Amino acid sequence: MKKKLQILLLLLVSKILYAQDITIYPSHWFANMQHNNVQLILKGSDTSFWRYRFTITYPGVQKLRSYRFSNGKYMGLDIAIAKDAKPGDVKITGMRDGKTIELTWKIKPRRTGRGETFAQGVTSKDFIYLIMPDRFSNGDTSNDSFTDLQDVNSNRNDVLLRHGGDIKGVQQHLPYLKELGVTTVWMTPVIENNMPLNKESAGMMSGYHGYWFTDHYKVDKRLGGNKAYHELSDALHANGMKLIQDAVYNHIGSQHWIAQDPPSPDWINQWSSYTGSNHRDEAVFSPYANAKDKKQMLDGWFVPHLPDVNQRNPFVATFLIQHAIWSTEEFGVDGWRVDTYKYCDEAFLNKINDELLKEYPKLTIFGEAWTNTVTGSAYFTRNNIKVPFKHNAEGVTDFPLNSAIMATLTQPFGWTEGVNKLYMTLAQDILYQQPLNNCIFLDNHDMDRFYSVAGESMHKFKQGIGLLLTLRGIPQMYYGTEILMKNFKNPSDAMVRLDYPGGFEGDAINKFHKNGRTSQEQEAFDFVSKLALFRKKSTALTTGKTMQYIPAEGVYVYFRYDEKQTIMCVVNTSDKSKNIALSEYPERTKGFTKSIDVFTGENKGTFMEVPPQGMMIVELK
Amino acid sequence: MKKKLQILLLLLVSKILYAQDITIYPSHWFANMQHNNVQLILKGSDTSFWRYRFTITYPGVQKLRSYRFSNGKYMGLDIAIAKDAKPGDVKITGMRDGKTIELTWKIKPRRTGRGETFAQGVTSKDFIYLIMPDRFSNGDTSNDSFTDLQDVNSNRNDVLLRHGGDIKGVQQHLPYLKELGVTTVWMTPVIENNMPLNKESAGMMSGYHGYWFTDHYKVDKRLGGNKAYHELSDALHANGMKLIQDAVYNHIGSQHWIAQDPPSPDWINQWSSYTGSNHRDEAVFSPYANAKDKKQMLDGWFVPHLPDVNQRNPFVATFLIQHAIWSTEEFGVDGWRVDTYKYCDEAFLNKINDELLKEYPKLTIFGEAWTNTVTGSAYFTRNNIKVPFKHNAEGVTDFPLNSAIMATLTQPFGWTEGVNKLYMTLAQDILYQQPLNNCIFLDNHDMDRFYSVAGESMHKFKQGIGLLLTLRGIPQMYYGTEILMKNFKNPSDAMVRLDYPGGFEGDAINKFHKNGRTSQEQEAFDFVSKLALFRKKSTALTTGKTMQYIPAEGVYVYFRYDEKQTIMCVVNTSDKSKNIALSEYPERTKGFTKSIDVFTGENKGTFMEVPPQGMMIVELK
Repeated sequence: MKKKLQILLLLLVSKILYAQDITIYPSHWFANMQHNNVQLILKGSDTSFWRYRFTITYPGVQKLRSYRFSNGKYMGLDIAIAKDAKPGDVKITGMRDGKTIELTWKIKPRRTGRGETFAQGVTSKDFIYLIMPDRFSNGDTSNDSFTDLQDVNSNRNDVLLRHGGDIKGVQQHLPYLKELGVTTVWMTPVIENNMPLNKESAGMMSGYHGYWFTDHYKVDKRLGGNKAYHELSDALHANGMKLIQDAVYNHIGSQHWIAQDPPSPDWINQWSSYTGSNHRDEAVFSPYANAKDKKQMLDGWFVPHLPDVNQRNPFVATFLIQHAIWSTEEFGVDGWRVDTYKYCDEAFLNKINDELLKEYPKLTIFGEAWTNTVTGSAYFTRNNIKVPFKHNAEGVTDFPLNSAIMATLTQPFGWTEGVNKLYMTLAQDILYQQPLNNCIFLDNHDMDRFYSVAGESMHKFKQGIGLLLTLRGIPQMYYGTEILMKNFKNPSDAMVRLDYPGGFEGDAINKFHKNGRTSQEQEAFDFVSKLALFRKKSTALTTGKTMQYIPAEGVYVYFRYDEKQTIMCVVNTSDKSKNIALSEYPERTKGFTKSIDVFTGENKGTFMEVPPQGMMIVELK
Repeated sequence: MKKKLQILLLLLVSKILYAQDITIYPSHWFANMQHNNVQLILKGSDTSFWRYRFTITYPGVQKLRSYRFSNGKYMGLDIAIAKDAKPGDVKITGMRDGKTIELTWKIKPRRTGRGETFAQGVTSKDFIYLIMPDRFSNGDTSNDSFTDLQDVNSNRNDVLLRHGGDIKGVQQHLPYLKELGVTTVWMTPVIENNMPLNKESAGMMSGYHGYWFTDHYKVDKRLGGNKAYHELSDALHANGMKLIQDAVYNHIGSQHWIAQDPPSPDWINQWSSYTGSNHRDEAVFSPYANAKDKKQMLDGWFVPHLPDVNQRNPFVATFLIQHAIWSTEEFGVDGWRVDTYKYCDEAFLNKINDELLKEYPKLTIFGEAWTNTVTGSAYFTRNNIKVPFKHNAEGVTDFPLNSAIMATLTQPFGWTEGVNKLYMTLAQDILYQQPLNNCIFLDNHDMDRFYSVAGESMHKFKQGIGLLLTLRGIPQMYYGTEILMKNFKNPSDAMVRLDYPGGFEGDAINKFHKNGRTSQEQEAFDFVSKLALFRKKSTALTTGKTMQYIPAEGVYVYFRYDEKQTIMCVVNTSDKSKNIALSEYPERTKGFTKSIDVFTGENKGTFMEVPPQGMMIVELK
């Protein structure tokens, strides 16, 4: 009897131990989803794992089919979850050669408030603030480094290493962001990047930026893990704010299990020797494209330590789709920013977008399509072009508009240069189905910081911010722009990802507070905040139509307007003061007698003097 | 009896004299046209002319309706010409207050060979040579100047004055053009420009270029009149060549009767004070365009001495449509190049194109849309863009491609500069419905001469010509390019419109003949000629598909190909010799073992060395 008990205990322990070695993706699912046929990937610890035959006993859950892969450690299991299946622990029993294992996989209740307090979409009514959490604020110094992770460094003296910033640090500064007029937080990816330091030209670099995924179902514990992300999401929504998740479909970190030990080699785009992407959007959409360039563009690796994921493999596609849906539900995401969009398999992109929208019709999806032309940019979103492949993302990160704004601020006025480039770029909006859905920006974590590009001129800073917050689209500002953070990318991208001063223990100066800012920084902050808060209540600036006038002598006049409101914007890129008469723009100014400066409330009347390199934003009354 | 006779004779004489003062537009029509409801504009000599009531007595010709205008000198008369009406003299009788006038208006037989020997269309199989006839060759020195014209000057020592070149001069050099491989002649307009000298910045300018129409129904007699134009057309067609007419709908010379004495003021776009066009294509197609800019773009005058024609006036529209049809029939035109296309009323453009194509289905129509972007260029032709207004011209003069070729030849290689600009521009062909119909060029009469832009480099000259004759589209070369004529537009456009050396009596050197050319000029001529003649027989280069590869290290490789033939083109814009292996371009080179240099016939095999700033054009076998 005692011996029997011992054996039984031993069996149980071994079972449990064994079960602990098995990982199931997705980690759990939710009751009552549209997407209720779920494909589980089970990962065992040895190559004979495939020999298990699994049964499922749970009311409303049915096994549909199982799959094996060339790597015997893995199995696929398609299950159907009935509409009326209740949340709870699903028992999955595996049997093989008389051995039995029992796994538990949870069905959780759905998050409440879908379409209202999460998955609400991010629209042109919003103002996005882009944060690299490692560099923004360290809200929890206990999670800066872990000895069980491959990179144990946390060192603020090295721009290429982790600095300890985290999700809690973001959460602690939501009042600051609200003060600034921000409605939406987009963080560079928070998913686990358990990667060793990697050699780059400037030194040994960590995955501080988040783009080196190693486990899709874990938020990096140095950022606070899933818990901190849940808390931030709840805090954002409690504050009437929104959350954008930064998704990466194109590649994974080389330490990801899919890269280290894939179910089959075709989960990764394989090359006989290392082949980098050619990075050219034209190779995808050119009517004269060749198969070789296109394949290299899409299947070539971004960099050597980021294996390129094969999204044409249906298991991979399903893995990514389920992760996207899971993340939205689990963390209460409102919008997806999709990294390296132009590098992904096109059919897959449309499929994952469709699946996300089927589940969350109001969710916003915009791709990072870093293209050279408006044509290229439009190609990667819903467009007005008759092309063989029609992309379905609602918007793109609008790089051509970014170039045009920078031309406005940095080039002398010419027929196609300076502010005329902005005029010309907007004219090409005929190619977009819905240009209001484009995410517009002055810079981001991959670009020279705007204030530096603007030559550290307060005039140009204000013109840039003025354009960002009055042009059509969803404005996105990069953290620290409001306090004039600067730098060029040279010698390293990390130079434009410096710490927000005051976000870290021991910082001598805290620019989150007025008394930590210089008068110039305060002027910049106030300018952003004032305009962002005005914009928030402005129907014209957020959802209104646009009308633009041909720039003359460096002066560009445009209107945002609807039935309720008309806003007139005047950008003077010249070095001379310019006089503007409302009567010169009759189609939009007719019937108005007052022009109220949105910053000062002053009535500028029907004639305005716009100072050199100045911008006037007035509401017509 | 004698007295009676005298009175009768007197009456007849007075009638005839009176009738001579009446002009009818169009000057005549043709039997058996599709367009057989013709609107006649009758111009009398005094403001009571409108009081005549006209009757027509001719078998198969019926008066439909008459119109009067605010200017009593004019009347409109709609007539229907039956399908079976025979050519002959149509009697038009006018009666008023007992007075009778009798006018004769001819119906002529149609030109034979429609769609075969005229109105055949100009396609990508052709090679267009653009000539400014005043500057090419003086074939008839008796017509250089006429005292009854407003400008009596003929002076080759002044670039702004007429030089005496004429249509006969063109005709005399058809053998030269054939030797060069040209298939199609496009002359700047030959229509009468009876204008006085006009002040421009560089001095007193004549209408030597032809864009200042004063009478649509007369070919300028200094160019040889209608007769010379007829003869040139016949000679071209007898040589298997084609004729493009340069049409100007947008404006007329200030001495045109429509400008001097319009039927009603609304034949001209009137402004309270002189208002020039703003010249911006974006003002027409921008989704954010305003009515004021658009009106100024379309209705503003090109320059003060060129009144802007109101094509929204249905009489004006019909006048222009009938003139286009009449010219095609009368002179045997094969293609229409439409000047200042982007300045014309859009609905009118589609209407005139439709009417021309209804009559001549194979006729080619391409607009001069000098735009800043591929988007703009595509907008003004049949495109793949969903826009509120869809233009219907088969092609455009491809300015963005021109810029891209010049970038290729003059800019250092960069991500979006140099030959990458060419690659990027062609990728945007997704916006065109039929890019093969675009007229492509290295320069024209309004641009710096190509050889000067190319820095007078023979290498770059060959690259430019190589691109012109192998890229998709209808290649157009400007006269004299083949003998390295050069110059920039500064200080005057006339600098790029110098005389062809040897085209004029007394020229010391005659470059129409080999012995008048320097060895460099001969090299250039041979290069053009050899490639043009090869192209003429090449299905791949004329109507084949295009495939392009991403430029690398300044080297751009593209293919023109069809089922019969594959041509590989390699442009090396770098300063280093480059080795090209066919195997690097497998999709197009598979199965081929030879690459035959189209110039030398040499087999370059499967590896080619392309010299610095060189271009290789090989046929794969």
